[in-house]
Amino acid sequence: MENPNDPTLRSWVDIPSDSDFSLQNLPFGICKIRRQGKRAVSAIGQYIIDLAALHELRYFDDLNLPQGIFEHGSLNPFIELGPTAWRAVRKRLSDLLRADKSGALRNYPDSQAQVLLPMQDVEMRMPVKVRDYTDFYASEQHATNVGTMFRGADNALPPNWKHMPIGYHGRASSIVISGTPIRRPHGQLKPTEGSPVLGSTRRLDFELELAAVMGVPNPLGKAVPADRAWDHVFGFLLFNDWSARDIQQWEYVPLGPFLGKNFASSVSPWIVTADALNPFRVPGPIQDPPVLPYLETREAYALDITLEVSLEIPSRVPVTVSRTNSRYLYWSIAQQIAHHTIGGCNLNIGDLLASGTISGPDPSSYGSMLELAWRGERPILMPDGSTRSFILDGDTVVMRGHAQRDGVRVGFGEVRNEVLE
Amino acid sequence: MENPNDPTLRSWVDIPSDSDFSLQNLPFGICKIRRQGKRAVSAIGQYIIDLAALHELRYFDDLNLPQGIFEHGSLNPFIELGPTAWRAVRKRLSDLLRADKSGALRNYPDSQAQVLLPMQDVEMRMPVKVRDYTDFYASEQHATNVGTMFRGADNALPPNWKHMPIGYHGRASSIVISGTPIRRPHGQLKPTEGSPVLGSTRRLDFELELAAVMGVPNPLGKAVPADRAWDHVFGFLLFNDWSARDIQQWEYVPLGPFLGKNFASSVSPWIVTADALNPFRVPGPIQDPPVLPYLETREAYALDITLEVSLEIPSRVPVTVSRTNSRYLYWSIAQQIAHHTIGGCNLNIGDLLASGTISGPDPSSYGSMLELAWRGERPILMPDGSTRSFILDGDTVVMRGHAQRDGVRVGFGEVRNEVLE
Repeated sequence: MENPNDPTLRSWVDIPSDSDFSLQNLPFGICKIRRQGKRAVSAIGQYIIDLAALHELRYFDDLNLPQGIFEHGSLNPFIELGPTAWRAVRKRLSDLLRADKSGALRNYPDSQAQVLLPMQDVEMRMPVKVRDYTDFYASEQHATNVGTMFRGADNALPPNWKHMPIGYHGRASSIVISGTPIRRPHGQLKPTEGSPVLGSTRRLDFELELAAVMGVPNPLGKAVPADRAWDHVFGFLLFNDWSARDIQQWEYVPLGPFLGKNFASSVSPWIVTADALNPFRVPGPIQDPPVLPYLETREAYALDITLEVSLEIPSRVPVTVSRTNSRYLYWSIAQQIAHHTIGGCNLNIGDLLASGTISGPDPSSYGSMLELAWRGERPILMPDGSTRSFILDGDTVVMRGHAQRDGVRVGFGEVRNEVLE
Repeated sequence: MENPNDPTLRSWVDIPSDSDFSLQNLPFGICKIRRQGKRAVSAIGQYIIDLAALHELRYFDDLNLPQGIFEHGSLNPFIELGPTAWRAVRKRLSDLLRADKSGALRNYPDSQAQVLLPMQDVEMRMPVKVRDYTDFYASEQHATNVGTMFRGADNALPPNWKHMPIGYHGRASSIVISGTPIRRPHGQLKPTEGSPVLGSTRRLDFELELAAVMGVPNPLGKAVPADRAWDHVFGFLLFNDWSARDIQQWEYVPLGPFLGKNFASSVSPWIVTADALNPFRVPGPIQDPPVLPYLETREAYALDITLEVSLEIPSRVPVTVSRTNSRYLYWSIAQQIAHHTIGGCNLNIGDLLASGTISGPDPSSYGSMLELAWRGERPILMPDGSTRSFILDGDTVVMRGHAQRDGVRVGFGEVRNEVLE
C-alpha cells in the first residue's frame, strides 16, 4: 500500500503553503454542519471533508464500515473499529484527494460540493467522548521551574521525578472544545496571613500541552509494553490545561491539584493521527539515571512539533508569548502509557493522556504564564502598554502547533479560548 | 403520598430480621439473569425484584416510563429520568410489596415468579457507568493517622484540611463490582537505600468508604449550594478504594496518588437511595474553625451507617477487623458537592464521590490496614495463627454496612473481593 505520508504527494485541492491541513495530515474531528446533526470530518487546506457524506456517496463501500459510523456525535465508535479501519479511511481520503490519480471525487463537482465545505462555515465540536483523563508532568524544565518557585532550587525536582513519568488523574467532564469561553473560577484563596477566603482566582493561567487520544484499549490487569504503546494511540490534540495557581497552591498538598484545574481544560478540534505524526518522531532527551526496563524503548517517540502560545487582547495585535517544541519532553508518550498501565490500569478508547506543560530550555519557551512571568516577577508587556503576569478577563489564549519536514506541514490548527469574568 | 420510609410498613414477602433489604430500603442495581441481558433490579429480603419484568407486566404503566428503561445495562438512563421518576418507582415497589394492600402482585403467583428471583440465582453487575470519580479525604481520624505516620504528629493534618474537604480525581475505568478478583499490582518500590525497583506491592490495603452516586447533574460553571446538594444524589454504594501503600508513598509527591490507587476500586452491587437514607441523617462532628459560608449547611447530612470490614482466609472463620460508622466523617456529602462545584466543575449522572477512608475515634474503628496494624507495628492475629499487616494473596476483604432505627434496617449488602497474585 502506498504511504499517505509520502512527502511527494500533491493534492488537486488548493492548499495554502502555511496550512496545517496538508494532504499528508488528514486529521479527524467532529462538526456541526448547518441544520444537520454532528458528523465526523477530516480537513484539507481550507476545507472540511464530510466523512458522512463520502460514506453516503459510497466512496467507502469496499471498506465495510458500519452504516452511520460517521454520524454518532463523537469519533469513539469510529476509533473502536481499530487501526486497520482508521488507516483504510485515511488512505482512501489521500487517494481521493491526490492530484496524480484520476479520482472519482475530482471529476464530480456535485459530490465535491457535498463533501468539501469551507472550514469557516462549520462549527467544530468535541471530537471524542472522554471517559478518563490523565495529566502527566513530563517536561523537566517545567517541573524544575515550578519546583524552584515552590520548593527552592535545591529541591526543585522531587526524588521520584527522573524514575517515572509522574502523573495524576484529571477531570474529564470539564474538557471543552476550542472556542468555549472559560469562566474565571471561584475558590479558596489563602492570604499570606490569616484565614482563607472565597474569591475569584487572581492567578488564572494556561498550560501548553499535547494530549494523546487512546485508540486501542488494554484490559484491566494487562500492562502495555513501552515499545507497543505507540500502537495504542489514535492521535493527538493540542491541550490547554487551564489552571488557577492560587487555588492550586492552597489545596494541592497532600493529594494533588483539584479545583485549581477542574473548572476547565480545552482541546483543539482536530485529532492529528499518530500515523500522520510518524515521520516526525525523533529521539527525546537522554535519560540519566537510566530508567527501569519497563520504561526503556528501542524506538524514538519524542515528537518534533513546533508549538506556540499567543495572547490576544481586544483590538490589538496578538502577542506570541511562548515558542517551544514537544521534543523537549523528558518522558515520551510510550513511557507514559507503559507507566500508566504497569499496575494493570485499563485505558479506554477516547481517554486522554496529556503531557503536562511543555517548557523548553530557554525562558521564551516556557509553557505557562507562571513560568514566563516567573510568578509575577517578570510581567509580559502587551501592545496597549499593560502587562500580564497571569490571564485577565477579556484576554484570549491561542495555542498552535505543527510539524514540518521535507516540505510537508502537519498541524493541529488551534485551541482558542476567551476568558470571561 | 404515603412515605415508603414509614417504619410501620410490613411486607407480605418474608424478610429475615437481619436482612439489609427491608421494605423501607428498595435499593437499585443491575444484574444478569440467566440467558437474558442485563436488567435493572431492586431487592427485598432474599429476592431480587426484576424491574424490567414488572415493566413488561405493566405494573408501571401509569408512570410513563420510557420503553426498555430497565434494560440498558446500567442505571444511568433510569437515573436521567430524574428524582420524580426514581421516587415514583420506589413508591410503586413499596405499594406492591406492602402487606396491608391487596396488591396486584401479591395475588398473582405467576407474576411473582417472573418478578421475584432468589438473590443467589443472579449475578450482579456494575450498577452505573462511571464517567468521573472523585475521592475525598473526609475523615479527620484517618487524615490524622496517615499524617502522623508520614509527617509526624505535629504536622499530621495539613493546614488546609479543616478549611475544605480535600479531594482528588480518581480513575473511573478500574472501578469493578463486588466479586471481581483483585490482582496484586506491580509498580515502582523504593527501598530505604538505593534506586527504585519494579515489583509487586508488599503493602496492599483496603480503604473502607462510602461513595455517593450523582443523580442530578449541574452544568459547567454552575456551583451547587451545600443545602441543595443532597437533592443531587441518587444514592450511595459501599466503596473499597484498594491501595498499594508502597507504590503510593514513592509516587505521591507532588501530584497525589496515581498507580497506588488506579489498579482497582470495588463497589457494592446495590445503590441504596438517598431517599431511603433520609431517616438516618444526623448532625456530623462540630466543625472548628468555622467553615466558609459556601460550606455551611442548615440541615444535618452526616449518615448514621454502621460499617464493618472482615478479612477471610481460606477455610477459616472470618475476622472482623474494623467496626466504624460514617457519622464520624468530618465533611458531609453536602459539603463535598458544594466544594467540588464551587469553581464551576460539572458533575454528571453516574459520577462517584467517595468519602475517603472512614476511620472512627478508637483503633478498632480505623478503615484501613495501614491504620489498624499501624504501618505494620501492630499486626492483626488471624485464626490460623498467622498475622496480617497488609492483605495477602488468597485473602478476601468483605465490607458491609447498614443503618438501623425504629426497628427498620436499611443496608448495602457487601462488597467482597479476593486478592490474587
